Amino acid sequence: MTTLFQNFFKKKQLNRVTKDFPEMPSIDGLEISTVSAGLYNTNRDDVSLFYFPEGAIFSGVYTKSSTRSVCIDWNVKANRKDIRALLVNTRNANAYTGKQGLNSIIELAKFFSDKKKISNKQILFASTGVIGQPFPLAKVKGVLPNLIEKLKRPIKLTWIKQALSIMTTDTFGKMSCAAVQTNKDFINIAGIAKGSGMIAPNMATMFGFIFTDANISQEVLNKMLKRNIENTFNAITVDGDTSTNDMVLLFSTRKAKNRIINDINSKAAKDFEKTLYEVMLDLSKQVVLDGEGAKKFLTINIIGASNDKFAKEVAMSIANSPLVKTALAGSDPNWGRILMAIGKTNERVKQEKIEIKIGNSLITKYGMQVPSYDEQKVKNYMLGDDIIFDVNLNLGKGQFTAYTCDFNADYISINADYRS
Amino acid sequence: MTTLFQNFFKKKQLNRVTKDFPEMPSIDGLEISTVSAGLYNTNRDDVSLFYFPEGAIFSGVYTKSSTRSVCIDWNVKANRKDIRALLVNTRNANAYTGKQGLNSIIELAKFFSDKKKISNKQILFASTGVIGQPFPLAKVKGVLPNLIEKLKRPIKLTWIKQALSIMTTDTFGKMSCAAVQTNKDFINIAGIAKGSGMIAPNMATMFGFIFTDANISQEVLNKMLKRNIENTFNAITVDGDTSTNDMVLLFSTRKAKNRIINDINSKAAKDFEKTLYEVMLDLSKQVVLDGEGAKKFLTINIIGASNDKFAKEVAMSIANSPLVKTALAGSDPNWGRILMAIGKTNERVKQEKIEIKIGNSLITKYGMQVPSYDEQKVKNYMLGDDIIFDVNLNLGKGQFTAYTCDFNADYISINADYRS
Repeated sequence: MTTLFQNFFKKKQLNRVTKDFPEMPSIDGLEISTVSAGLYNTNRDDVSLFYFPEGAIFSGVYTKSSTRSVCIDWNVKANRKDIRALLVNTRNANAYTGKQGLNSIIELAKFFSDKKKISNKQILFASTGVIGQPFPLAKVKGVLPNLIEKLKRPIKLTWIKQALSIMTTDTFGKMSCAAVQTNKDFINIAGIAKGSGMIAPNMATMFGFIFTDANISQEVLNKMLKRNIENTFNAITVDGDTSTNDMVLLFSTRKAKNRIINDINSKAAKDFEKTLYEVMLDLSKQVVLDGEGAKKFLTINIIGASNDKFAKEVAMSIANSPLVKTALAGSDPNWGRILMAIGKTNERVKQEKIEIKIGNSLITKYGMQVPSYDEQKVKNYMLGDDIIFDVNLNLGKGQFTAYTCDFNADYISINADYRS
Repeated sequence: MTTLFQNFFKKKQLNRVTKDFPEMPSIDGLEISTVSAGLYNTNRDDVSLFYFPEGAIFSGVYTKSSTRSVCIDWNVKANRKDIRALLVNTRNANAYTGKQGLNSIIELAKFFSDKKKISNKQILFASTGVIGQPFPLAKVKGVLPNLIEKLKRPIKLTWIKQALSIMTTDTFGKMSCAAVQTNKDFINIAGIAKGSGMIAPNMATMFGFIFTDANISQEVLNKMLKRNIENTFNAITVDGDTSTNDMVLLFSTRKAKNRIINDINSKAAKDFEKTLYEVMLDLSKQVVLDGEGAKKFLTINIIGASNDKFAKEVAMSIANSPLVKTALAGSDPNWGRILMAIGKTNERVKQEKIEIKIGNSLITKYGMQVPSYDEQKVKNYMLGDDIIFDVNLNLGKGQFTAYTCDFNADYISINADYRS
């Protein structure tokens, strides 16, 4: 696991974030490449390719937006048992692009079909950027030969380049990796992500591409992705906005030597799932760390809710409240706003049962501020950049943890002139 | 009706807003007063009283928060057929104050009971300010004799003082008034409001106190308040946050000489209701105009939704989107964000049917940007401060109009150090 998180904001200030990139492994059966198609009118890499010469299985989770990108309409029809390629571009979301957008994808797919004998159902597309602008087909198509020629098994350096190539307003490349010891050798897991603004659950507005060589069944892979999304990529929020293009894809080349994982309740499955969860959580947290303008990371633990669903609603209500997030930016222990955000949910709380903790300080009990409340102590804690709120509703056994960042003037300036 | 709205932001910049205060009338049977209890440690008025010597009927709508203030627990039990007083304080929300908060109210009510023979069920309380701080009972109780002594029939100047006395982060007093011609003479309507941040529907975090002398039945008054709330105070949003203390109260002293309005379908009822709606809408819009840091006013008209409920959900999704609101702040016609906000609702839109207009410019048709799109023209329009988005979903007959403001760096600075 990466150690990126520790002292992240200090390092970011010092521009030394890249020093902590994790030791991303090669994944047997995966090749990657990235080039610049000049989509930004600069030389930055903006189109990238993930290629499986012998195929891979995959599972995907997509945005629930009803104005989703044509890429997603395309991907949901793909062959999950034998996928060959994933093509990613930035700068243009290929969303709300009408027939021009769909025709562009068809033409790009045809190129792969001609060059690599890949059928339409064996290639996936992921686009991110401005919505509603015509897709830059000529530019993207023009770099495909070069992209294919540059394909190589990934090493740390090329993983970094790949992670950088999928960024939009992100300020650093997001990577995470881990290995799982098995009966024979290791299973590798390596993932990259992108996302900074427009981050909210269902899905977080972002990409997560995770690769493993685990010998695993399609069915178990699907289940593992779906049940670990809820507490990772769907537990983060930057601004409550949901994009047209979100997706998390989990691929396996099945090249590892482990005995096949086809029973989700087996010990091997549990070992693998635990590590997969950690990689997914690590990537999710990195997206929050890079929240537009973020200078503080906030973890919100809800326990004692009527059920997990309400726990999530309460956690997300706090995480999405502009008033909570601006108080966080100002290091103001204005806990009344936490209470306000709890109160606006559908959970039928009992005021006198709510216990709020900020860091180690108990703030409320018996429906009021505790007599021992020490504002200066809490204020000092909130001056830090890794803040934890614990809320116990004392109603039942529901729990959920959400992750978010503060909301400060930099978010505004980033988004008031994103396109200029 | 007030003309406050025209050129509001220019006037605000010039500090000339007060010039446009409306000609607020006296309401027969109502007396008001305000004083400073030093709650802000300054001389500003912070406690105010509305008094009905011969009683009034009233109807109320309250926040749906489950962590609501003890004031609201109290008010819902009040005698709606014979109310005598409304006491308002700022600076302290009397929310999450436990027994100390409730005991404070009981003690204040006792004072009125002793001095004015008002029962506990004949007095209403409204508090606004910081949540969770002990209620400043001694200070508030100390000024009650003075407050009662100063009671007078309102005139324009005292209405202004009253409106100013209920402000927190508001930058101007919010008033509106109108008269309705009847078979005999006029019915007067006069209202004041407060609210600036923490504004969202169910309820908008704010107070609206509306007074009329209409001779009207309790039943019709209730119905009129409830059915006009939806398109006025519940159609505005500043930041999507809901307070613990919101309330809109509509009082009638029934002193006007009109034949009693007891049939909501009569012409007299319709005339009155239309004017009441206009006063409520005017007050609601003033709250948005004074949204924390607001520099632009945005009207979002949704038509063609499956039904009114979905129309409202879509309108509010756009109105609450930080990305839409920051684009507005930057005068950036980034209409893809409008599309994103439409897409994240439960309305099952068809992309190819959505028509978006910004001002007079048609932006999208047939699932893509129209060929005639002229970005510079739309950008010039968005440089204005009174912006209209029209969205036709072309699905059915549902419609809703929402009102909001832009989201800029001033919102952050106001809220990052509200208490300091």
